[in-house]
Amino acid sequence: MEKIKVGVAGYGVIGQRLADGVVKQEDMDLVGVVDVAPTLSIRALYDSKNPYDLYVVDDSMKKAFKEEGITVKGNFDDILSNVDIILDATPGGIGIKNKEKYKERGVKAIFQGGEKNEVADVFFHGYANYQKGVGKDYLKLTSCNTTGFIRAVDCIDKEVGVERVVVTIMRRSADPGDIHRGLVDVALVEKVPNHQAVDIMLIMPHIEATGVLVHLPITHGHLISLVVTPKKKISVEEAIKLFDTHPRIKVVEIAKGFNSNTALFKYARDKGNKRADMYEVGLFKETVALSGENLFFTINIPQEAVVIPETIDAIRAAIPMQTDGNEAVRLTNKYLGME
Amino acid sequence: MEKIKVGVAGYGVIGQRLADGVVKQEDMDLVGVVDVAPTLSIRALYDSKNPYDLYVVDDSMKKAFKEEGITVKGNFDDILSNVDIILDATPGGIGIKNKEKYKERGVKAIFQGGEKNEVADVFFHGYANYQKGVGKDYLKLTSCNTTGFIRAVDCIDKEVGVERVVVTIMRRSADPGDIHRGLVDVALVEKVPNHQAVDIMLIMPHIEATGVLVHLPITHGHLISLVVTPKKKISVEEAIKLFDTHPRIKVVEIAKGFNSNTALFKYARDKGNKRADMYEVGLFKETVALSGENLFFTINIPQEAVVIPETIDAIRAAIPMQTDGNEAVRLTNKYLGME
Amino acid sequence: MEKIKVGVAGYGVIGQRLADGVVKQEDMDLVGVVDVAPTLSIRALYDSKNPYDLYVVDDSMKKAFKEEGITVKGNFDDILSNVDIILDATPGGIGIKNKEKYKERGVKAIFQGGEKNEVADVFFHGYANYQKGVGKDYLKLTSCNTTGFIRAVDCIDKEVGVERVVVTIMRRSADPGDIHRGLVDVALVEKVPNHQAVDIMLIMPHIEATGVLVHLPITHGHLISLVVTPKKKISVEEAIKLFDTHPRIKVVEIAKGFNSNTALFKYARDKGNKRADMYEVGLFKETVALSGENLFFTINIPQEAVVIPETIDAIRAAIPMQTDGNEAVRLTNKYLGME
Amino acid sequence: MEKIKVGVAGYGVIGQRLADGVVKQEDMDLVGVVDVAPTLSIRALYDSKNPYDLYVVDDSMKKAFKEEGITVKGNFDDILSNVDIILDATPGGIGIKNKEKYKERGVKAIFQGGEKNEVADVFFHGYANYQKGVGKDYLKLTSCNTTGFIRAVDCIDKEVGVERVVVTIMRRSADPGDIHRGLVDVALVEKVPNHQAVDIMLIMPHIEATGVLVHLPITHGHLISLVVTPKKKISVEEAIKLFDTHPRIKVVEIAKGFNSNTALFKYARDKGNKRADMYEVGLFKETVALSGENLFFTINIPQEAVVIPETIDAIRAAIPMQTDGNEAVRLTNKYLGME
Repeated sequence: MEKIKVGVAGYGVIGQRLADGVVKQEDMDLVGVVDVAPTLSIRALYDSKNPYDLYVVDDSMKKAFKEEGITVKGNFDDILSNVDIILDATPGGIGIKNKEKYKERGVKAIFQGGEKNEVADVFFHGYANYQKGVGKDYLKLTSCNTTGFIRAVDCIDKEVGVERVVVTIMRRSADPGDIHRGLVDVALVEKVPNHQAVDIMLIMPHIEATGVLVHLPITHGHLISLVVTPKKKISVEEAIKLFDTHPRIKVVEIAKGFNSNTALFKYARDKGNKRADMYEVGLFKETVALSGENLFFTINIPQEAVVIPETIDAIRAAIPMQTDGNEAVRLTNKYLGME
Repeated sequence: MEKIKVGVAGYGVIGQRLADGVVKQEDMDLVGVVDVAPTLSIRALYDSKNPYDLYVVDDSMKKAFKEEGITVKGNFDDILSNVDIILDATPGGIGIKNKEKYKERGVKAIFQGGEKNEVADVFFHGYANYQKGVGKDYLKLTSCNTTGFIRAVDCIDKEVGVERVVVTIMRRSADPGDIHRGLVDVALVEKVPNHQAVDIMLIMPHIEATGVLVHLPITHGHLISLVVTPKKKISVEEAIKLFDTHPRIKVVEIAKGFNSNTALFKYARDKGNKRADMYEVGLFKETVALSGENLFFTINIPQEAVVIPETIDAIRAAIPMQTDGNEAVRLTNKYLGME
Repeated sequence: MEKIKVGVAGYGVIGQRLADGVVKQEDMDLVGVVDVAPTLSIRALYDSKNPYDLYVVDDSMKKAFKEEGITVKGNFDDILSNVDIILDATPGGIGIKNKEKYKERGVKAIFQGGEKNEVADVFFHGYANYQKGVGKDYLKLTSCNTTGFIRAVDCIDKEVGVERVVVTIMRRSADPGDIHRGLVDVALVEKVPNHQAVDIMLIMPHIEATGVLVHLPITHGHLISLVVTPKKKISVEEAIKLFDTHPRIKVVEIAKGFNSNTALFKYARDKGNKRADMYEVGLFKETVALSGENLFFTINIPQEAVVIPETIDAIRAAIPMQTDGNEAVRLTNKYLGME
Repeated sequence: MEKIKVGVAGYGVIGQRLADGVVKQEDMDLVGVVDVAPTLSIRALYDSKNPYDLYVVDDSMKKAFKEEGITVKGNFDDILSNVDIILDATPGGIGIKNKEKYKERGVKAIFQGGEKNEVADVFFHGYANYQKGVGKDYLKLTSCNTTGFIRAVDCIDKEVGVERVVVTIMRRSADPGDIHRGLVDVALVEKVPNHQAVDIMLIMPHIEATGVLVHLPITHGHLISLVVTPKKKISVEEAIKLFDTHPRIKVVEIAKGFNSNTALFKYARDKGNKRADMYEVGLFKETVALSGENLFFTINIPQEAVVIPETIDAIRAAIPMQTDGNEAVRLTNKYLGME
């Protein structure tokens, strides 16, 4: 079978990880990545052992790369001529403009959470609504927080049904190395409900959700506490077992040192994972508890890499490579080493 | 009527604010404060316009104060001879030792949350169980978080009854200027249930509570999100009205700039409050919402001053100055300017 | 003698402190403060015991204040009719526009460091170049860092002469409660020389200066280490003595708990200073040392209040109230309690 | 030639990187690593693709590893029987105790900066005093800051001679993921001179050094500004050229995005370096300047990995593998990929 040819537009925090993720899929080929300037991430890519092929949005940008001694393979048109689908990880608001190009060239595209929902035919999550994305041209992924906690909610929902969810999202206010935003000694509160609660109701319309979002002076992952009201009672042990068998949830023990967002980052780093990344949501075992029949637990969202698996799923749905969601996520997981 | 004579042992973060609070009570006299060394806070007290009288634990400590040019009025025995009650705000674990002195001298005492419950006859909250403290010799206050959120829960409980509570506590990991503890870029998770959930069940035994606590790199106040299951449905508007009329809860609007823990600190500073303190719990109006019949909201705990009103209440109960809790808290509130 | 009538435009971090400072001057009257919207600081002012009179830039803004129940005394024209001089503490770039109004109305004005130098006739520092400001219409203050370290450099310069200065500025990246900027876990380096080094050379042209500026995730004050090359050798003891007698420098001891930017903030808070403010630069005694003949030391800049004394000096120069700089700063210091 | 057999005691932040570094040396064999408990780092090692052989200090510790399903190869005696030299990266104070074992077994050892100088025969730096370590049994490395800035100072010293150095060290207060120490919103000042200034004078006794150290709420690397007084004038261009050709200094440009400690960490991460590590000191090109004849510049110290090259050098000296320092560092650099 011929491999699906994939391009990545925007080589930032998400884009570089999408490229890595595609490279790991045995049934996909990464044609290259597109960016507008020789940023620090591009510099790092070029200094690494096996850089991806680089394309620029238009030829006028080639000069800046040349001055840095960085080889450019072509422009946006060139890469669009060579791909079946493009993963658009450009800054929010650019994707909607790029879409015109994609339509013109008949190239399918997957957009990230920063774009408005209107950009896409389907608002997509690999586990929760794969079927809706099958064969569609334009899919938009849920944002990192929503992607992550839907994994946990969906996993309970498939077992006993879920009626309601209340989330408290403790959000990192900047990515590591980000100098354009950040908070010092501030916990900034947004009005209820946060967009993540609204988003889960778009993906899983049978669930009523609300929640608060607090921006915090941390960089290595969000934390979310969830109160989930199941349709049928589920015990703490049963819930942990469910979480434990989910390929995209890593149940960790506080008692063994997994006591923070940063401990999970450190674990990934110590293990030697590329870029110190985790695809899995971390779920702190000792935080799973019951309140009446409500299930309570706390998870960690590795914001930089968490959307990679579901974006790969989206490729599988859009092309479509698999019409069955279970088979699709199985393959994504297998190639990403999340079995 | 003769004023009740009060001493404060331990002139740290809490102790200095207890002293301020006692001074504002027209029916109490602050005899003085006790400490062991000329700390920065003692230095500041002495450099201020109207310093409180200073006592040392034992005479050997006088030399260090003298070298700093700071006048000491006497020792621990001297102040104990002159007070009806002592507010013990010494570091956790010291209070239990001091208690021997208090017993010997027949002086009543109020301990803070850092001591073990065994130190006291009653685990006390001015609003939730005033009656239990009436006439008792040794009372222990709930800790800052518990003191604060009990105000909100008790206020709902008195109106419609409360069955269950789930809290997500986002805790400041150090006080401003604290160099002995702190976290950098870490959100540290404790196992469920946190001690605050256990504590509310000791104070309000008819409520089932659980929750998670996350330590964060912030200094100006804790944040807590609460999911409260009432016995009888209550609307968002009714709840806000209840909170709004509570003298120890300040309902604030995110839209008007009260968008964070630090905004509340800044407001107190800008207003010219001594030490930039707030006695009130801040409650973010736009975070009040329903999830099914559960009431959801988020509050701010100004950890440095929040326990002052309830500690003053405890003096009123222990002596007893008032046998009626409503009258007691009314007076405390009036003198602290919280009407 | 009639008091000089002063207005303050812009009631932000600096503006509210300028108003406080003017009120303390027995030879000045604060006519009122001007702002554009009922911000959190305005709310706090109005909720305080003795609010200043409020003016708005134009009448269309009165509605927003009225909706908040806040009384407005008049508009920009009204206050300009009643003042001899205005302290412009509006956000950078607004002052240059306001200047047209001031010129039209024949009102003198003092601008802050955020404006470009072109806004003023003189770039001013009360100690280092008072004479240049005498009788001038438009003065611009040095920024908080420059204002602070010039105090220390000028004090050495007047004694033994200074040839060169190298500064390492460790800058707070946000004020307390600021949500619009900030850094998380980042130390951001600017190219050399920083503008503060350039600025000292404008104020004290006989000194050659350079230095680096690093933005940091802290809020309570900048730190600066200085290497000062004197014309004539000065010992550590002599230098400390000089610093110690300077009314705007507070020599503090690390060994006594003054070990950080935040310790100084805490001291001001514990002492009961309004808004927890310090006008003095803190100078850490144990950091004064010699390297060859170079004098090395580290200071703390309380960025929110440090420019208040020099701005008051500027009023004295511009009017002029005193033609002798020594007499002017003596009066400013006396009324601000910095003797 | 037979490879030198190396063991690593203590698998913490430094220990795991020492093990990585030894593995890269073609003339050394890593026999294994020793630790006392199945920490998160050990867990990560075991979950990685090619774990190192694990030893425990004594057999009683094997149980804890076994319970985690982690295979242990032997105990401290076992590994000591198989190595020529041990790199002791245990927590400060343990090394001196371990030394007894090393002496007993006739095993050479290299200690880290956390141990007292008395532990070793020589206080060592690969570039600055290699010769002193040749053939010695016990060497102690300089700490991370000192190791890093000696590279830059030594490089100037070898070219034009250095008389004096003044350093301002902006130190990270915790490593990423460290929950046992840290500062929130505090810049903590230590008395002058800091130990790093004292240390450089031990290694390079002809240099007079002083400086201040400030602890900061950051995790990804220290920053140091240096004022270096050369014996013979050196221009900015000449200095940059010298730094640029030093294999252990990476000259970076702020204008190209290398604007902070975290930008360098991000670069290493984006490039795919294992654990996101950098062996090189980063030197910000735009911070190199002259003040009179003094050379001023600012560097970044990647505290987790910076001591690895000089520790490898120490193995070469102690054995001795090379008696010529130039040849030794050339080999270390080559194998670590720092050419």
